[in-house]
Amino acid sequence: MGTTLAQLAELVDGKVFGDPNLKITGANIIRDAVSGELTLMDKPDQVGLLMENCQASAVLVREISDKLNIDGILVANVHEAFGKVIRFFQPWEQTQASGIHRSAIVSLAAVVDPTATIGAGSVISDGVVIGKNSVIHSGVHIQAGCHIGEDVTIFPGAVLYDRTEVGDRCIIHSAAVLGAYGFGYDSSTGRHILSAQLGNVILESDVEIGAGTTIDRGTYGSTKIGEGTKIDNQVMIGHNCRIGKHNLLCSQVGIAGSTSTGDYVVMAGQVGVRDHVHIGTGAQLGAKAGVGSDIPEGQQTIGIPAGPFKEVIAEHMAIKRLPDMRKTLRALTKRIEQLEKEAAANAAPAIRKAS
Amino acid sequence: MGTTLAQLAELVDGKVFGDPNLKITGANIIRDAVSGELTLMDKPDQVGLLMENCQASAVLVREISDKLNIDGILVANVHEAFGKVIRFFQPWEQTQASGIHRSAIVSLAAVVDPTATIGAGSVISDGVVIGKNSVIHSGVHIQAGCHIGEDVTIFPGAVLYDRTEVGDRCIIHSAAVLGAYGFGYDSSTGRHILSAQLGNVILESDVEIGAGTTIDRGTYGSTKIGEGTKIDNQVMIGHNCRIGKHNLLCSQVGIAGSTSTGDYVVMAGQVGVRDHVHIGTGAQLGAKAGVGSDIPEGQQTIGIPAGPFKEVIAEHMAIKRLPDMRKTLRALTKRIEQLEKEAAANAAPAIRKAS
Amino acid sequence: MGTTLAQLAELVDGKVFGDPNLKITGANIIRDAVSGELTLMDKPDQVGLLMENCQASAVLVREISDKLNIDGILVANVHEAFGKVIRFFQPWEQTQASGIHRSAIVSLAAVVDPTATIGAGSVISDGVVIGKNSVIHSGVHIQAGCHIGEDVTIFPGAVLYDRTEVGDRCIIHSAAVLGAYGFGYDSSTGRHILSAQLGNVILESDVEIGAGTTIDRGTYGSTKIGEGTKIDNQVMIGHNCRIGKHNLLCSQVGIAGSTSTGDYVVMAGQVGVRDHVHIGTGAQLGAKAGVGSDIPEGQQTIGIPAGPFKEVIAEHMAIKRLPDMRKTLRALTKRIEQLEKEAAANAAPAIRKAS
Repeated sequence: MGTTLAQLAELVDGKVFGDPNLKITGANIIRDAVSGELTLMDKPDQVGLLMENCQASAVLVREISDKLNIDGILVANVHEAFGKVIRFFQPWEQTQASGIHRSAIVSLAAVVDPTATIGAGSVISDGVVIGKNSVIHSGVHIQAGCHIGEDVTIFPGAVLYDRTEVGDRCIIHSAAVLGAYGFGYDSSTGRHILSAQLGNVILESDVEIGAGTTIDRGTYGSTKIGEGTKIDNQVMIGHNCRIGKHNLLCSQVGIAGSTSTGDYVVMAGQVGVRDHVHIGTGAQLGAKAGVGSDIPEGQQTIGIPAGPFKEVIAEHMAIKRLPDMRKTLRALTKRIEQLEKEAAANAAPAIRKAS
Repeated sequence: MGTTLAQLAELVDGKVFGDPNLKITGANIIRDAVSGELTLMDKPDQVGLLMENCQASAVLVREISDKLNIDGILVANVHEAFGKVIRFFQPWEQTQASGIHRSAIVSLAAVVDPTATIGAGSVISDGVVIGKNSVIHSGVHIQAGCHIGEDVTIFPGAVLYDRTEVGDRCIIHSAAVLGAYGFGYDSSTGRHILSAQLGNVILESDVEIGAGTTIDRGTYGSTKIGEGTKIDNQVMIGHNCRIGKHNLLCSQVGIAGSTSTGDYVVMAGQVGVRDHVHIGTGAQLGAKAGVGSDIPEGQQTIGIPAGPFKEVIAEHMAIKRLPDMRKTLRALTKRIEQLEKEAAANAAPAIRKAS
Repeated sequence: MGTTLAQLAELVDGKVFGDPNLKITGANIIRDAVSGELTLMDKPDQVGLLMENCQASAVLVREISDKLNIDGILVANVHEAFGKVIRFFQPWEQTQASGIHRSAIVSLAAVVDPTATIGAGSVISDGVVIGKNSVIHSGVHIQAGCHIGEDVTIFPGAVLYDRTEVGDRCIIHSAAVLGAYGFGYDSSTGRHILSAQLGNVILESDVEIGAGTTIDRGTYGSTKIGEGTKIDNQVMIGHNCRIGKHNLLCSQVGIAGSTSTGDYVVMAGQVGVRDHVHIGTGAQLGAKAGVGSDIPEGQQTIGIPAGPFKEVIAEHMAIKRLPDMRKTLRALTKRIEQLEKEAAANAAPAIRKAS
């Protein structure tokens, strides 16, 4: 039972230290590893944790130290190597038989590259184009006229409304919805009449879309996500938005219609940005920030309403001292009353004299 | 290649100004239009933008002005006309062949109007009724006893739990979930025991439900959404809520159980409302407001915790001045100390005399 | 038409008071019941509401009172009894024919217990194990190597990525996504390179996952949800999180990566918790709290940034008085000016004499 340390060293192109015949039965992180398992140490300061609180029988490291009293494997890249070991011990991995599953519904007017994969029950409509090596998992709905690039992965249950464009190497997770109607109405009659919904969504290359994220179509034109931008789960991006390149938008962020961002913008979790503003390149919006106006390039912004990091922190500090300020104010009022009494008393004799 | 301006004018029932033989290759908004394309101008003050920063070759307008140095088409309703042109140039539009797709699973105990459409892989359970001209896209799950009215549209991947009722002309977007269990438990034993989940969800007519929005079923009765109310993406509405007519609930709003709203209520993005309160008719809740109590009719409400607009703005302004207030307080303290010293000095001779 | 009160009393094992031959046509809550229907009263103080504002013809109660001038049924447990009556009158309930629906796609390398149910169009991949009496509704996607326990219910459209483990009696609602990639990137090159995504999600027994909730897989290890924990709709739990037992996480909560919680933690709606912190056993986080650090056991925490309940309430109260404080400060400034003038006037004669 188990695989020898020497065999795993060969798998990861590393060098054994300690017993090459040690049997390894699995791989796990320091927090969770049990006896018989291989773990990884990616920072030298984890050595205490590893030696005292971890039951792993061996470790993957980049360099040996005196305190490392355990067998293991030396490798140049511990994460790459650990990934190989994890996969080696993993009993199952999701694989899609290449080709089109017999239960998929693919329009005769769609063009699917022969190297692409279409999973069970997925629906590919008229005019759809799917590029080389792209993997469409089961239960994905791709509506008419969508263009899917090469090496794209789309997970079960994602929905692409008509004419969505997806660049090469994009990853779209389950329950993501691209191209639903924007939230725009003409309410002049006392009823809310839906405005035109004729645009689409465009993802440039290397974009990742998290599970449950929704990106609405443009009114007439496109809602665009720039190259290399990564969007976490349950993010909402309104109609006509233009998100720049290499942004990181964390979970549950909401961006209202027609807002744009520069490149390398970071938004932490639950940030909200109003419609029709611009977030400058390199700006960083802190968790839960409520942004109601343009943000300059590179600005760190936090708070509700949002402001520059230092200003808002100063306000938060001042608020913490508010109860103290109120006490000071009451004490000062008393001291002033006392001074006023004394001043009146000093003045009084003269008045009395005069009377 | 391309279509003449005259041909497009005929399409939209408009009148050419400039060259009727100009070839048009597409249609796009001012921001995105390239040479050869037709754009639209819906406000007179866009004329500068159009003439200086737009490469469109022609424009759709309601009236001609001196500054408008470009060919185009005059129409009464630019949005309606532009929509027709956009559609004319669009290569694909999602269409559902009418009738029931061969891969749909429709219960023999369901009643589907012959004019309705059921898309690929959709599942229609026992006792479901689907009205005239309704379009159920692919991958929609409609559980037992649901009633779907006429002219309803349900997009791929939406789920209706049992006995959901959907009024005429409703639109339900992808990944919306109507009728999941409410979040109610009896925790008296140290475990959380799910309470009764026997109610349902009712949408009155002309309701729109955004992508990823979830509306939980009532405990025994119904969670209701009033006529004409529009709900954006990723909104959460708890069990037993009663939402009034013609509300606008923007993205990522959360409303806890048993809360009700009047008519024409507007909630901006990421608003949260607690359970068992009432939001009066015409009330407007600003983005990210955290509402913990009843809100009177027509009140503009913002902030966390939420309060009347003017009060909260005054608080925000005061917070901005807090660092200044602290400075003033320190300066006053010094001035009082000085006055106290002087008062003591004035009093001192007398005391000294007395000693 | 209708059923007699006596027949319903037999159904719920209760005792009629009033007319046993009264015909009952349905059941509804006090707010919604109409003439002919049976309602329930679970608190004695509802008697006024019931007698004055409710049209129900009969009531289910635990005890009779003088003010209760209506026919009805006496039972020990009104909720259990009312549930039976509601179900009796309900025309349709979602039921799954047991066994595997002909349109489901079940891998030959999956092990499905013969008492389990697999709905229409569901996809069960290689290596999946499904336990006794579990009900997988239609359109569920269970990827390779997942283990589903006994008596589990999974609603339409839920997605389990590969190797997800689901304990006995768990309930997973529609559009929930378990095991999507974590939001972790190496950005050192100017591009965001996705980190390892080799872990999985583990739900212990009796966990409920709301509609649209997303739980990301661990990097190498597991994201874990403890026994008995209930998670509402649209909650986001990041990679490597460890959620304790019997937590209640309300709608739209977001918890960033590697954060852990003790047991019996409660988070109200729209709470956000940062990465790598620990929320102690029994802690309660108020609605919209923004938590940026560890929270001690049992602490009630609110606010953005979050702090102990009493402190933050004191701050909120102080903020409400800020406009008043500013007035006081201005008034004090004037009084000091006056005192300074008087002091200068008193001092002046001496100075004048000296000159």
